[in-house]
Amino acid sequence: MKVECAFGRILKQLRTAKGLSQEQLALSCGLDRTFISMLERGQRQPSLSSILSLSKSLETPAHEMLKKTTDLIDSEKS
Amino acid sequence: MKVECAFGRILKQLRTAKGLSQEQLALSCGLDRTFISMLERGQRQPSLSSILSLSKSLETPAHEMLKKTTDLIDSEKS
Repeated sequence: MKVECAFGRILKQLRTAKGLSQEQLALSCGLDRTFISMLERGQRQPSLSSILSLSKSLETPAHEMLKKTTDLIDSEKS
Repeated sequence: MKVECAFGRILKQLRTAKGLSQEQLALSCGLDRTFISMLERGQRQPSLSSILSLSKSLETPAHEMLKKTTDLIDSEKS
């Protein structure tokens, strides 16, 4: 699985778990809603700054988001 | 401290600890040496794919690289 696809899945999981719409998440971290949508569909990779903004809004440490992402990739390999 | 500056410091720290030159690291992870140099000087942000390639070559989990980066930012704030 491509890293951007895995990240997108984790992002959507965390966002929906917080009960946020893409619009609400975009507003809270100063990103564009369409960018959030493209991230979730694995069509864009986030920059480090975007990862940090998302992690604040989702109240999940950035490194945990990345661990969940790489764990998802590894789980698909096994 | 900007996230790209913190990441650059951590990247240089990990690279030199492994005794690798920028050229050797670039070759091992399929990135350009000048890109490695710009990352280390905080002039570029890595994509997720680059972070993963770097983490493999540096034998350091990607999430650990990000944790070291955010810890460095936080330590400068306090």
